[in-house]
Amino acid sequence: MFFEVVHQTGLSHMSYIIGGRGKAVVIDPRRDCEIYIDIARRHDARIIHIFETHRNEDYLSGSVDLARFTGAEIYHGRRLPFKFGNPVRDGEVFHAGSGKIIVLETPGHTDESISLAFADTAFSTEPIAVFTGDTIFVGGTGRTDFYPERAEEMAGMLYDSITEKLLALGNGVIVHPAHSAGSLCGAGIAAREFSTIGYERMHNPVLRASREQFIRQKLDEQHYKPPYFQRMHALNLQGRTELGRVPKPSPMNPDEFAAAIQDGMYVLDVRSAEAYGGASIPGSQAMPQQLIGRYAGWHCPYDRAIGLVAENETQAGEAVVLLLRMGYDSVKGCLAGSMNAWEKSGREFQSIPGIHIYDVLRRIEAGEEFLVLDVRTKAEFDRQHLPNAVNMYVGTIQQHVHELPENMPLVTFCGSGRRAMVAASILKQHGFSDVRDCLGSASALEAVEGRTITVG
Amino acid sequence: MFFEVVHQTGLSHMSYIIGGRGKAVVIDPRRDCEIYIDIARRHDARIIHIFETHRNEDYLSGSVDLARFTGAEIYHGRRLPFKFGNPVRDGEVFHAGSGKIIVLETPGHTDESISLAFADTAFSTEPIAVFTGDTIFVGGTGRTDFYPERAEEMAGMLYDSITEKLLALGNGVIVHPAHSAGSLCGAGIAAREFSTIGYERMHNPVLRASREQFIRQKLDEQHYKPPYFQRMHALNLQGRTELGRVPKPSPMNPDEFAAAIQDGMYVLDVRSAEAYGGASIPGSQAMPQQLIGRYAGWHCPYDRAIGLVAENETQAGEAVVLLLRMGYDSVKGCLAGSMNAWEKSGREFQSIPGIHIYDVLRRIEAGEEFLVLDVRTKAEFDRQHLPNAVNMYVGTIQQHVHELPENMPLVTFCGSGRRAMVAASILKQHGFSDVRDCLGSASALEAVEGRTITVG
Amino acid sequence: MFFEVVHQTGLSHMSYIIGGRGKAVVIDPRRDCEIYIDIARRHDARIIHIFETHRNEDYLSGSVDLARFTGAEIYHGRRLPFKFGNPVRDGEVFHAGSGKIIVLETPGHTDESISLAFADTAFSTEPIAVFTGDTIFVGGTGRTDFYPERAEEMAGMLYDSITEKLLALGNGVIVHPAHSAGSLCGAGIAAREFSTIGYERMHNPVLRASREQFIRQKLDEQHYKPPYFQRMHALNLQGRTELGRVPKPSPMNPDEFAAAIQDGMYVLDVRSAEAYGGASIPGSQAMPQQLIGRYAGWHCPYDRAIGLVAENETQAGEAVVLLLRMGYDSVKGCLAGSMNAWEKSGREFQSIPGIHIYDVLRRIEAGEEFLVLDVRTKAEFDRQHLPNAVNMYVGTIQQHVHELPENMPLVTFCGSGRRAMVAASILKQHGFSDVRDCLGSASALEAVEGRTITVG
Amino acid sequence: MFFEVVHQTGLSHMSYIIGGRGKAVVIDPRRDCEIYIDIARRHDARIIHIFETHRNEDYLSGSVDLARFTGAEIYHGRRLPFKFGNPVRDGEVFHAGSGKIIVLETPGHTDESISLAFADTAFSTEPIAVFTGDTIFVGGTGRTDFYPERAEEMAGMLYDSITEKLLALGNGVIVHPAHSAGSLCGAGIAAREFSTIGYERMHNPVLRASREQFIRQKLDEQHYKPPYFQRMHALNLQGRTELGRVPKPSPMNPDEFAAAIQDGMYVLDVRSAEAYGGASIPGSQAMPQQLIGRYAGWHCPYDRAIGLVAENETQAGEAVVLLLRMGYDSVKGCLAGSMNAWEKSGREFQSIPGIHIYDVLRRIEAGEEFLVLDVRTKAEFDRQHLPNAVNMYVGTIQQHVHELPENMPLVTFCGSGRRAMVAASILKQHGFSDVRDCLGSASALEAVEGRTITVG
Repeated sequence: MFFEVVHQTGLSHMSYIIGGRGKAVVIDPRRDCEIYIDIARRHDARIIHIFETHRNEDYLSGSVDLARFTGAEIYHGRRLPFKFGNPVRDGEVFHAGSGKIIVLETPGHTDESISLAFADTAFSTEPIAVFTGDTIFVGGTGRTDFYPERAEEMAGMLYDSITEKLLALGNGVIVHPAHSAGSLCGAGIAAREFSTIGYERMHNPVLRASREQFIRQKLDEQHYKPPYFQRMHALNLQGRTELGRVPKPSPMNPDEFAAAIQDGMYVLDVRSAEAYGGASIPGSQAMPQQLIGRYAGWHCPYDRAIGLVAENETQAGEAVVLLLRMGYDSVKGCLAGSMNAWEKSGREFQSIPGIHIYDVLRRIEAGEEFLVLDVRTKAEFDRQHLPNAVNMYVGTIQQHVHELPENMPLVTFCGSGRRAMVAASILKQHGFSDVRDCLGSASALEAVEGRTITVG
Repeated sequence: MFFEVVHQTGLSHMSYIIGGRGKAVVIDPRRDCEIYIDIARRHDARIIHIFETHRNEDYLSGSVDLARFTGAEIYHGRRLPFKFGNPVRDGEVFHAGSGKIIVLETPGHTDESISLAFADTAFSTEPIAVFTGDTIFVGGTGRTDFYPERAEEMAGMLYDSITEKLLALGNGVIVHPAHSAGSLCGAGIAAREFSTIGYERMHNPVLRASREQFIRQKLDEQHYKPPYFQRMHALNLQGRTELGRVPKPSPMNPDEFAAAIQDGMYVLDVRSAEAYGGASIPGSQAMPQQLIGRYAGWHCPYDRAIGLVAENETQAGEAVVLLLRMGYDSVKGCLAGSMNAWEKSGREFQSIPGIHIYDVLRRIEAGEEFLVLDVRTKAEFDRQHLPNAVNMYVGTIQQHVHELPENMPLVTFCGSGRRAMVAASILKQHGFSDVRDCLGSASALEAVEGRTITVG
Repeated sequence: MFFEVVHQTGLSHMSYIIGGRGKAVVIDPRRDCEIYIDIARRHDARIIHIFETHRNEDYLSGSVDLARFTGAEIYHGRRLPFKFGNPVRDGEVFHAGSGKIIVLETPGHTDESISLAFADTAFSTEPIAVFTGDTIFVGGTGRTDFYPERAEEMAGMLYDSITEKLLALGNGVIVHPAHSAGSLCGAGIAAREFSTIGYERMHNPVLRASREQFIRQKLDEQHYKPPYFQRMHALNLQGRTELGRVPKPSPMNPDEFAAAIQDGMYVLDVRSAEAYGGASIPGSQAMPQQLIGRYAGWHCPYDRAIGLVAENETQAGEAVVLLLRMGYDSVKGCLAGSMNAWEKSGREFQSIPGIHIYDVLRRIEAGEEFLVLDVRTKAEFDRQHLPNAVNMYVGTIQQHVHELPENMPLVTFCGSGRRAMVAASILKQHGFSDVRDCLGSASALEAVEGRTITVG
Repeated sequence: MFFEVVHQTGLSHMSYIIGGRGKAVVIDPRRDCEIYIDIARRHDARIIHIFETHRNEDYLSGSVDLARFTGAEIYHGRRLPFKFGNPVRDGEVFHAGSGKIIVLETPGHTDESISLAFADTAFSTEPIAVFTGDTIFVGGTGRTDFYPERAEEMAGMLYDSITEKLLALGNGVIVHPAHSAGSLCGAGIAAREFSTIGYERMHNPVLRASREQFIRQKLDEQHYKPPYFQRMHALNLQGRTELGRVPKPSPMNPDEFAAAIQDGMYVLDVRSAEAYGGASIPGSQAMPQQLIGRYAGWHCPYDRAIGLVAENETQAGEAVVLLLRMGYDSVKGCLAGSMNAWEKSGREFQSIPGIHIYDVLRRIEAGEEFLVLDVRTKAEFDRQHLPNAVNMYVGTIQQHVHELPENMPLVTFCGSGRRAMVAASILKQHGFSDVRDCLGSASALEAVEGRTITVG
C-alpha cells in the first residue's frame, strides 16, 4: 500500500494519492495532475477513483484532466449540481486494492462537502485514516462564511459533521485535511500536516468548545474572500478546467515586452521584494513568488495577457504553474534576461527603497510627516500596530487607495515586508512617488524591541 | 550562440536547434517537441523559425505542435502541397540573432528537399555549417528510390544537388545531416555524427564517383520500405500530427490485460530478446525496445489497441514515446508487474529457447532436419550465410511464412539474435512449435570462427 | 513543519526526516544519505540530530556520512558500546524547531533499542507520533531471536517495552516503524506503512495476546538470519560505514568481463528471472533486482570483485546502490551491452527453461522421475507444498545442494518463480544440467486450481 | 560514436567527451566530473583516456578525480613537471574504439600546451576534428602573456603552432577549442562555439596577419590576471584537486549567519544586482551569480569561511559548484530564508540605489559634484566613456579605492550595471555612503543616445 501527499505550496493545499495492488485513488487533485499518474505508475498502479471533498474555491481542480488521462471516475458530494462526475451519498463504499473508502457527508464548509474514511481491509473494516477536506484541519476548522446569510446554520452543520461523523471514528484514526497553515480556507491551522482524531479532540482549540461556543467562534472569525474565488466556483462546478499540457512562458526581449505592454499586457513581477525594490518596470505589479497563491487572485485580471518578470526562466516557469492552478491561462511570456536586459535597453525603471524599522520609529518620534500604511488583515492590525499607521488590507487596497492624501510620503508595512511590496507597487501605479517598504516590518519590530508594539 | 543536436535514437534521426540573442531555429523537430522549448528557454530564447528539410517518411513531425506552443513559423520546400506552413525557395534568407539561414533547394531524396546553409553574420555572410537533411549523410547519401519509376532521375538530381549546391559551399563547412547510422533513409552512413564538406568530399565513398557511377550505385542500392512510411507521408503532408501531452501507459493487471487481448488488443513485448525467449505471452509480438524504430512499423497495426509488455513502467513509458513518434497513438496500457505477474496468474506462457551457434553448426554437420531462417536483409544474406539457411526479411516475414514447410524445426538467425526474436515470435503466432533463436547469430559465428562464413 | 519517509525498497526499510523552522532530525538514515540533505535544503533546514533506533543488522547506516556532511550529532541507545555518536537514556529530550523528541528506551529487539516520541510544542508537549524502530510494526513486532540463549528474556522485554512505553502514549499517537512488509526484521508486517497506537492496540494480532502468549508466539516465530547480518552488526557498531560519493559501475565489454571472471570476479545477474532463464553466463548468480535486498546477503561474497549483468546501465547503477547499502563496495563493473553483447562475442551461455505449473502437475501425475525443489521458507513450505517436493531454503541451499541425488531432473519452486531462479542458478553452478524454474510457482498453482494445494 | 560538449558556463570553458564501441576519451575535464561518467555510461562506454591540453589557470581540473573513479589514464604535455599523469610528445597516438587521437605539441599559450587531432579510423586515418585547447579559439587565439619576459617568444611560438600544426591539418577539420566568448584566456573569441580550420583561416582576424603582425597584435593585447590564477597553477600542477562528493551549503538562520560573520566569515551575495541594490548585508560582497567565474577570483579569499546569500537553496547550491571549480572549498553555508529572513530578524541592511543613465547625464550637465567610477577594463574605457568618469578596473578596485576623494558621491558604471554593483559593494565596505549603480550603464547609454558616447 502506498500513500503520498501532493502539495500545492502557495495555496497550502494538500491532495492525496493512496493505493495498492495495482489500483489507486486520488483525493482533490490539483490542476497540473501529471504527478498523480507518475506516482501511481511508480507503484505499478492505475488511478480508478477521484474524489473531490468539495467544490474548491481556491484552485482549479485537476479531476477532469486526470479522469481523461486515466479513465478514472470522478465523485463529489451530491448537494451541488456538478456538470461532470458522479454524486455520492453518505455511507457509499468504494474499493481499490485492499483499501476501502467510505463516504461521509460532512456539510458545513459547503453544503456538499464530504469526508472519506479509509480502511485497510487486510486488517479490519474499521477506518485507520480519514480525508477531511475542509471540515477539520490540524488545529483548526474550515471557514463557514461562504453563505453570509446562512453563516450560523453552516457553522452548526460543521460542528455536527465534526462531532457526529469525524470524532466518532475513534481516536486512533489519522486525519488528512485538504489544507495546512497559510490557507485562506480555514482558521488556526497548524504548521504540522499530520494528526489524529484523538489528538485533535484534545488539542484542537475549536473542538473543545460546546456547539454554541463553536458557532460563536466561527461567526467571529474574519476571513477575506479574494475575487478569484468566484471564478474557481463556477469553473469547478462546470468542470471547465481542462489543461492538457503545462505551458511554458516564452522569453520576450525588452522590445517585445515593451510592445506587449503597449498592447495592454499586465506585468506581474515575481522576483523577491528586494529585487523589485531595487529596480522594476513602472506600472508593474509586485508579486513575490511565495505570495502568488494568496494574493495574485486579488489583483491579476483574467481578461488580459500576463507578462512575467522573473529572476530566470526557471522561476518564470514555476510562476506559470502557480498561476494556472488559479485559472490564469493567459501568460504570454516572460522578460528574457530579467530586469538587467530591461535596464540595458535604456528604458525607465522605478525603485522602491527599503526602510529599516529603526528609521521608521525615528521618523515617527521626530514627528515627520508621513504615513505608515499597514496592509495586513484587520485582525493582525488590531493585535498591534505602529502609532501613526493606517490599515488597508493588501487585497483590497486598489479600492481604497483614493482615500489616501495626495503627495503624502508613505511607508508600507506588513508582517515581513513582502506584502508591503505588493502594496507599494500598487501605490506607485496610482501615482504616489515617495513610497518606501519597511523591510522586516512587524517581525523586525518585534525583534528589535524584544517586545510587541504598543498600540498608538 | 547555442547549438544542440536532439536525437531520436531508434530512428537514427538528428534534429537541431540553433540560436542566440534571444531567438532560435529548429530543424526537423521530432513529434514530442517539448525538448526544443526547454533548450531554447535554458538559453533565454524563443523559437521563431521551424524548418523541415523534407516531408519525412520515417517519423511524425513535431512542427505543428511546436509552432502552436511557441508561435514560430514553419517552412518547407515548395515542391509539395503541404497543408500547413510556408513554402520556401532557393536563396531565401532567414535571420535569428546573428544567425543567417540560406535556403538551398536540394531535390533528389524527394522533390521538395531543401538544405539550409548557416552563417554567423558576426563574422561573415559565408556559411560555417549546412543542415543537409537526407541529401548527404556522414559517409553516405539519401535514398532515391521513393518514386521507383523515376529512380534514375532522382539519383541524378541528388548528385546535382550535392555537387552543385552542397560541395560548392566550401571545404570548411560543417555538415549536419538528418540521420546517422542505422537509418532506413540512406545507405553507408557512418557511426560518427559530425563531418565537413571537405571531409566528405575526400572520404565519402559515394561522392568520389562520377555522375554516372553515382546514379548506377544509387540504382543498385537495396532499400526496404516499411508500410508505416505511407502513413507518415500522408500525415506529415497534411500536418495531422498534433500530440499535445505525451501520454503514459496505464498499468493493467493480468486479468485486465487478458480481457483486453480477448477484445482484440495487440500485444507488443519490448523486453530484451532473452527475456522474451524466457517467457512471453502466446500470440504476442517480440519487439526489443532498441528495434521499435526500425521494425515496429513493419508489424504493428494502426487500427488496434496496443498493450505493452515491458520490464517496468519506465521502459513502458519509453516505448510509448518511441511508438508515438511513428504515429502509434493507441497504446492502451502495459502489463503491471511484467511477465512475473502474468505467470503468477496461472496463465499460459510460451518460451523460445536460445541456441548457440556451436549447436547450430553441429546440427548442420550432423545433417539434422531443420531450417535456419535468416531474417536479415537480402544484402546481408548475400554477403554470407549458413549452408542450409533460407532468407526471409524480418520486415516481410508475415507474407512469406506460409511458404515454410509445416512442422519443420526452425532456427531464426540474424546479425545478433534480436531480429531473430522478432521473427521467432511471428513464427509462433503462425503455429510453428519448434522455434529457436540463434542468440549471437552472425556476430557469434564470426567471433567463434575467427573468420567469415563460407557461403554454402 | 515538514515530514518525509525515505524508503530503502529492497529492504522494506523506512527512515524519516522531520523538521521545521530551519532545523531537521533524521531517524535511521540509509547509507546513501544525500537525499536527507536534499529534503532538508528544500525546506531551508539544516539537519542537527540523527537518531539510530538500534544498531541495524540489515543495512549499513548513513549516520557517519550524514553527520560528516552536515555537522549533525548522532545518538543511539546507551546499552551498546558504539564507537561513535552519543548514548542517550530514557527521558532525554531533544528539540528542533517546535518539534520535541523524547527518548524511550524500548529493549527487546535488541538491548539498546530506543523509540522516539515526537511532540509539536506549538500545540502540546504530549506526543503526536512515535518512531518505533524495530519494536512495533504495522500489524507486527520486531524479531527477538538475535540472542538465541536469551530469546525468552528478549521477547518479554519487547512485550514490556510495547505495553509500558508505546501503548502508554495513547491511542491518538501515529506510529512510524522502521520496516514495512517484506522485512527480515519482524513478522506479520502489513503492506500499509501508517498506523496509530489505537489502531495497533485493536488490530495488531500480536498485541492482543497476554504477556505469556506474546512470548510464546515470539518463540514460535521462525526467522532466517542471512550471514551478512554479522558484518552489518560489526560495521554499524564501529561506524565504519563511510561512503562519500555513490560509485557507478564501469561498463566492461565481454572480453574485459570474461577476463575479470577468470581473475575471480563474482557475477551477479540482476535481470528478471525470465531474462536470466532465457540466457545467462555460466557460473553466474541469478539475483533479480527486487530480490537483492533479501537474498544477495546470503550468497554474495565480500572478498571478491563483483561484476553485474543488468538490462542496461540504469539498472546496473540501481543495483550498485542496493548492494552498497548492504556493504558490498566492490562492484567492479557491469557487462556493457548486456547479454546480447556476450552472445555476439560467441561465448557460451546457459538457459534455465521455465515450466508451467500445469506441466509440473502433469509430470507428477505421470509419475515422471524428477524432483520439485521448493526453496521457500520452512513456514511457507509447511503451509502447503507439492506432493513430491523437497524443501531447501533459498538462502541456505549452497550448504545442502550436495544432499540432492546426482543427475536428477529438478524443478525449482517458490512463491512466484523468482527465488526459484536464484536457486536454479546455484544448482547450475553445482553441475546440475536438467534444471527448470516453475514460473508462477505457488501463486500460479493457487490461481489455476482455484484452491490451495493439498499437502502430498 | 558519441560526442558531447560539457560547459563550465561562468568560465566560458568547454570540455569534451568523445567515444564509441565502449570506450571514451575526455579532454580538459572540469572539477565536478560526475557528468562525464554519466555521459559515458549512457553510451555504454568507459572512460579510458583523459587529456589536459595544458595546465589550466582558470579552473581546477577534474582529471585526478575522474581517473580515480574510472581507472582512466591522464596525459599532458611533457614540458611541465606534473606531479601526476603521463607526459606525451608530438606524434604520440592513442586509440579508443575507432577513434584515433594524435598528439600535437602546440606551445605558445603555455610551453607544454598540446592539441589533439582526432581521426575516425572507420573512414580514414586523416583527422576530422582537432581539440585546440587555448591555442586557437573561434575567432581568436590564446593569450601569450603569462611569462611577461618571454611575451614575444611565446607569441611567436603560438603563431608557429597554429600555422605549422593546426592550419596544416586541412580546411575540412572541425575546431574544438577550450574556451568560448567571455573567457579570460584569450581575445576576440566568438559567441559561436563551432568552427573549422577552413573557416578560421578565412575569418579569424588574427590568423590573416603575418608572423610579425601576429606577434605585434598579441603584444598589444591587454589582459588582466586575477590573483586566483596563481593558485590554480600550483594545484593543477600538483594534482591537488580532489573533490569527491559535491558539497551542498547548509542553511543557516540569521542568528547563526550573524555569529559566523562575527567569527570572520566572508559574505558573498550571489543574487542579482537589483536584489543586492534593494537590500543587502552591510560589509558583504556583491557577486551576481553570472559573474562568479570572472570576478570571484579577484576578491574572494581562500583562507576564510564563505557564507552565501542567494535567492534560494537552488541558487546557493549552484554558487557552491561555481566556487569549487575555482578551488573555493570553504563555503560554510547560506542564509536560510534569504534577505527576507535577515530583515525580519531586525538586523541592519544596506541599499545601493540604482540610477538611470538619464539622471547621470542630467547630473553631469547640471555640473553636480559627483564622480562616475567606470569599473570596466582599460580597453573598454578607452573606447568610450562618460565625461567625468574615472577608470578603476573592478578586479583591482580594492587596491585603488584609497585614491578616491572622501565623501564624494559616487556612481559606479560598467557595461550593464552588474560589475558596477560588485564595485559598489566594495566602496560600501570602504565607508563610502553615497554610492549609486548606473543600472544599464554603457548599454543603456548606447540605447538612449542611439550613438556611442563622445569621449570627454
